[in-house]
Amino acid sequence: MTTATAPASHPFVDKHQSVLDEAAAALAARSYYSRYPESPSPRVYGEGAAEAGLAAYEALRDNAFGGLGDVRTDGQWVGEEVSPYGPALGITYPHLDLDAALTAAADAMPAWRDAGARTRAAVCVEIVERINQRSFEMAHAVMHTTGQPFVMAFQAAGPHAQDRALESIVAGLVEQERIPASVVWEKPGRDRQGNPAPIRMQKDYRVVPRGVAVVVGCNTFPTWNGYPGLFASLVTGNPVVVKPHPRAVLPLALSVAVCREVLADAGFSADLVQLAPDAPGEGLAKVLAERPEVRIVDYTGGPAFGAWLEENGAARGQLVYAEKAGVNTVVVDSTDNLRGVLGNLAFSLTLYSGQMCTTPQNLYVPRDGIATDEGTVSFEDFGARLAAAVGKLTGDDAKAVELLGATVNDGVRANAAGLAALAEEAGGTVVLDSREVTHPAYPEAVVRAPGLVSMDASREDVYTQECFGPVGFLIATAGTDQSLAQFRDTVREHGAMTAAVYSTSEDVLDAARDAAADAGVALSENLTGPVFVNQTAAFSDLHGTGANPAANAAYVDAAFVANRFRVVTSRRHV
Amino acid sequence: MTTATAPASHPFVDKHQSVLDEAAAALAARSYYSRYPESPSPRVYGEGAAEAGLAAYEALRDNAFGGLGDVRTDGQWVGEEVSPYGPALGITYPHLDLDAALTAAADAMPAWRDAGARTRAAVCVEIVERINQRSFEMAHAVMHTTGQPFVMAFQAAGPHAQDRALESIVAGLVEQERIPASVVWEKPGRDRQGNPAPIRMQKDYRVVPRGVAVVVGCNTFPTWNGYPGLFASLVTGNPVVVKPHPRAVLPLALSVAVCREVLADAGFSADLVQLAPDAPGEGLAKVLAERPEVRIVDYTGGPAFGAWLEENGAARGQLVYAEKAGVNTVVVDSTDNLRGVLGNLAFSLTLYSGQMCTTPQNLYVPRDGIATDEGTVSFEDFGARLAAAVGKLTGDDAKAVELLGATVNDGVRANAAGLAALAEEAGGTVVLDSREVTHPAYPEAVVRAPGLVSMDASREDVYTQECFGPVGFLIATAGTDQSLAQFRDTVREHGAMTAAVYSTSEDVLDAARDAAADAGVALSENLTGPVFVNQTAAFSDLHGTGANPAANAAYVDAAFVANRFRVVTSRRHV
Repeated sequence: MTTATAPASHPFVDKHQSVLDEAAAALAARSYYSRYPESPSPRVYGEGAAEAGLAAYEALRDNAFGGLGDVRTDGQWVGEEVSPYGPALGITYPHLDLDAALTAAADAMPAWRDAGARTRAAVCVEIVERINQRSFEMAHAVMHTTGQPFVMAFQAAGPHAQDRALESIVAGLVEQERIPASVVWEKPGRDRQGNPAPIRMQKDYRVVPRGVAVVVGCNTFPTWNGYPGLFASLVTGNPVVVKPHPRAVLPLALSVAVCREVLADAGFSADLVQLAPDAPGEGLAKVLAERPEVRIVDYTGGPAFGAWLEENGAARGQLVYAEKAGVNTVVVDSTDNLRGVLGNLAFSLTLYSGQMCTTPQNLYVPRDGIATDEGTVSFEDFGARLAAAVGKLTGDDAKAVELLGATVNDGVRANAAGLAALAEEAGGTVVLDSREVTHPAYPEAVVRAPGLVSMDASREDVYTQECFGPVGFLIATAGTDQSLAQFRDTVREHGAMTAAVYSTSEDVLDAARDAAADAGVALSENLTGPVFVNQTAAFSDLHGTGANPAANAAYVDAAFVANRFRVVTSRRHV
Repeated sequence: MTTATAPASHPFVDKHQSVLDEAAAALAARSYYSRYPESPSPRVYGEGAAEAGLAAYEALRDNAFGGLGDVRTDGQWVGEEVSPYGPALGITYPHLDLDAALTAAADAMPAWRDAGARTRAAVCVEIVERINQRSFEMAHAVMHTTGQPFVMAFQAAGPHAQDRALESIVAGLVEQERIPASVVWEKPGRDRQGNPAPIRMQKDYRVVPRGVAVVVGCNTFPTWNGYPGLFASLVTGNPVVVKPHPRAVLPLALSVAVCREVLADAGFSADLVQLAPDAPGEGLAKVLAERPEVRIVDYTGGPAFGAWLEENGAARGQLVYAEKAGVNTVVVDSTDNLRGVLGNLAFSLTLYSGQMCTTPQNLYVPRDGIATDEGTVSFEDFGARLAAAVGKLTGDDAKAVELLGATVNDGVRANAAGLAALAEEAGGTVVLDSREVTHPAYPEAVVRAPGLVSMDASREDVYTQECFGPVGFLIATAGTDQSLAQFRDTVREHGAMTAAVYSTSEDVLDAARDAAADAGVALSENLTGPVFVNQTAAFSDLHGTGANPAANAAYVDAAFVANRFRVVTSRRHV
C-alpha cells in the first residue's frame, strides 16, 4: 500500500455514510439518539418478524451450530447450555484450534488495517444492521441463556445493545479520524545568507491496530456487555476472538456469525471475528489472556478473575477493560412523591430479578424516617411500603415473570433463599422475603421476587459485599449526612455501577452530587417516572465511570477507544 | 458548587485564551507550531537574559533550595547532585513528610476540580510562560545535572520542553471539553391516550480527577520527559507529586517552584504540585507508587523498574505511562546523497554522546554494500566513511564538547570504554573506538565521542540489548530484505523510540513503512539535512508510539490524556 494513494471507497462506506455522520454527531452532543427501535411491534419490525425469529431460534435447538462457516476448529464440538427456564438448548459449537485461529487472525490483520478507519466503521455498521434484523431470534437466544424475560431480552440484547455497538463504532471512528492522514510541516528558517529557507517535511500518520483482541462474555448480558468491546476493537483494526460464557454462548455465536458473514461479503477475512467456546473445564479465557498475540481484553464478570486479567495484562503490556462488581446505592432523604419513589424503586429491584450490574442493592434511609408528601414516614414504614410496592408489582405470577425472568444460576438462588440467615448475621430484619414464583409456561424455572433485609449502618461488613440477585438492603442511618458519607466511602472502596438519591432539598442534592463525584459514580436524582436507575441510554449516559473499583472503563467515552489503536508516523523532506 | 452556575472566568483564562485556542488548533492540524523560541539569542530573550540566567543558577549553588515556599517537609534536607562536568552542585532540597504531603494534595483537589478544565489549562499556560522566562537559568541547571551541552540544554530542556508542556495542556483541555457540561435529553414517547409525551432529562457531566499523580523524572531529560505527564495530570484535575532523579533534581525543583508560585497567585493551593526528592537510599518512587492515594504514575527510565511500576499499578487500578528503553534502528539500503547520509547519521550518533532515548543504535547495512551517488560502497567502506564523518564532526575537542556534552553516569562510561570487548564477544570489529575528549573548560568531565562496532546480523544476542551512550552497531545483513525483517522483528520484541531508512527505491521505502507499521515505530526517511532522527517536534511528531515495548504511550495523543480524568453524570427529569 502506498500511503499517497487514497484507497477507493468501499461500497459499505457509501451505504452507511449518513448513519456514521449522524451517530458521530449524536455522540458528540450526548443528547437523545437511537437508531434501532426498541419496540418489538410488528409495525416496526414487520408482520411475521416475531414468528420468524422464534422459528429461527427453534431451528437452532438440538443441532450443531453451523452459522460460523469455515472455522479454525480442532474438530471438537462443545456446548452444554441449559435454559434458566428449564430445557437444555442442545446446541454445540465448533471448538477452536487456538494456534490456527490466532494465526488466521494475525494474517487477516494487515488488509483490515490498510482498509482504513472509515471502511472498517462502515463494515461494522453493516454488521449491526444485519444483527438488528435478527433481533427476535436474538431475543429468544438471550432469554434462554440469561433468564431475562422476553421483552427485556428483545430490548436490552437487541436494539439497546445494537445502539451501544453503533456508539462504540463511531467513537472509534471519530477517534481515528482526529489524526490527519498526512500533513506538510513547514518550519520557518533562513539560510546562511539570511534568505528564507523553510524546512519542509511531509508526515504521514498511519493508524495501526494493537493485535488480537479478546472479548470475554458474561452470562447475564452477553450482547449488551459484549458489543462495546467487540466493535471498539474491530473498528480500530484489531481482529477479535469472542470467548462467550459457557452458559450464554448462543447470543454471541449468532453475533459472530453475522460478523463473519458481513466481513466476507465486504471482501475481508471472516477470521477477523472468531468464536472461542470453552471445552468443559478448559478455562479458555485464561488461556487466551496468556497468549502473546492477545493485546486487548474486554471482560465482564466476577472481580477475582477481573483482577487476575488486569495484573496478567499489565505484565504483558495488554490493555484490559474490565467491568466487575459493586454495591449500587440509593440515598433516600425526602420526597414530594412517595408513591412515585416506591414504584420506581420496586421496579428497579424487580427487573430481571435484580440480576443487572446496575440494580440497586444498598438503600440508605434515616432511622428517624423521611419527610414525604404523606407526612413523615419512619424507617420501618418506608420498608413496609417498599415491600408492599414490590408485592403489588410481583403479586401475580403470570405478570411477575414478565418482569422477573428466571434466576440465572445457583449463586443467585442461594442469595434469594438466604435472607433469614443474612438478617440474623447482620442483626437485622427480613422486611420482605424473596417470594418463589411459579412460571406458568416454564414450571422448571426458578423465579424469585425481590426480598428486603434491613440492618444498621454499622454493619458495613455485610452490606459492602455484593449480594447479586433479588436482594435489597435497607440500611438505617443517623441521617442523610451519614447516608451520603457511607455512600461515598463504600463506593470508593467497593465500587458501584449506579447510584440514586431522593430529596426535595437542593442542598442535599448538591451534597449528593459532590459525594457522587468523590465516589466516581453516576447519580440519578428523584426518579419517580419511567426512567430507572438500572438503565443507561447509549449516546448519552455513560455506563460505568471507570472511576471506582466496579469498572475501569465506561461505555463509551474516548478513553474506551483511544488506546486500542496507535499511530505510526513516517516523515520525509519534500 | 452548584453545577447550574457557571464559574466566573478566571483572569488567566482571559489572558491565555488565544494561546489555548491557537495551540489546540495546531495540535489538531499537527502541522508546524511552536510557541517558545528555540534560539537563545538576545534578540529573542532580551539583552542580559543569558547573564541573568547564569547568575540565577550560580546563586542556587551551595545553598538550600528555597524556591518551593512553604512545603510539607519532615525537616530533612537532601541532595547530592554532582555535575557531569565536575563540580558538586551543593544544593539541598526539603524532604517531604509523605503523609502530610499526600493529605495536602488530596485537600487541594476539590477546588482544583471544581475550577473547571479551562481555568486549569489557563493556569498551566501561565506556569509554562513563567518557566519560559527562566530558560537560561534552566539551561545551566540541566547542563549540570544531565551533562547536556549548553545550547542543547537551553533548547531541549527549555523551549522544546515548554512546547511539549503546552501540547499536553491543550490535549488535556480539548479532551475534557469534548464532553458537554450539560444537555437536555428528550426521548420521544406517547402517553396512553396517544398524545406526545416525551421523557425529558437534564444530564450534567462533571469532569473528575483520578487522584494523586506521580511523575518519576529521569536523569537525562528531566523537563522534556517530565512535563508531558506533569501537565497532562495537572490540567485534568489531579494533584502532582514530582519525584526527580536523584542526580537531576534541580531542573524539576525549578519547575515545581514555578508551578507552586503560579498556583498560589491564581488562588489555588500550591500543594497541587509538590517536589519529592529522595533521601539517600530511600527509593521514594517505589514508596510513592505503593501509596493508595496515587492513581497515576508517569515514568521515564530503565525497563526493570518500569515493568514493576506497570504490574504494581495494575494491581491497584493505577494508570502507568512508562517510557523505558529500546534499540533504535536505521536501515541503509541506497542513497543519492552519501555525504548527506553520513553527515546526518554522524550528527545523530554524536549529539549528547548518544545519550538520547532516540539515538540510533542498530544500523543495518547489506554486507554486499549499497548503491550510492558515489558508486557501490561496500559494508566495510560504509563503516569507514561513517567513522570518518564522526571523526570530522568530533575531531576538535573544543567544538566537539558543544555537541557531545559530558557522559552522565558510569554505565555510559563503561559502554563507551568497552567496545573492544564487545566486538570480541560479538565476533565483530571495532570500526571506530570511542575517543576520549578533553573538555577545555571542565577537565573533570568524562567526554566520549561515538564509537562504532560492526557485527553480523546473526548476533541478535548482542545487538538487541540496549547499549546506552556513544555506541553504534553496524550490522551486516544479506540484503535489505533481511535488514527490514530484522528491524521489524527486533523492534517488535525489544522496542524502539525511533527508526530511519535510507533508500532511493520507492518499493523499499514502502516496505520500510510496512515494517515500521508492523513494528509500531515512527519512521524517518532519507534524512540528509538539518532534521535528525533523534528529534521530534511538539504538536506534530508523536514521541514514541505506545505500540512497541519501548514505551506504552506517546507524547501527546488522546490516549495520553483521555483516561487521566473521568466523567460523572448526574441526571434528573425536567
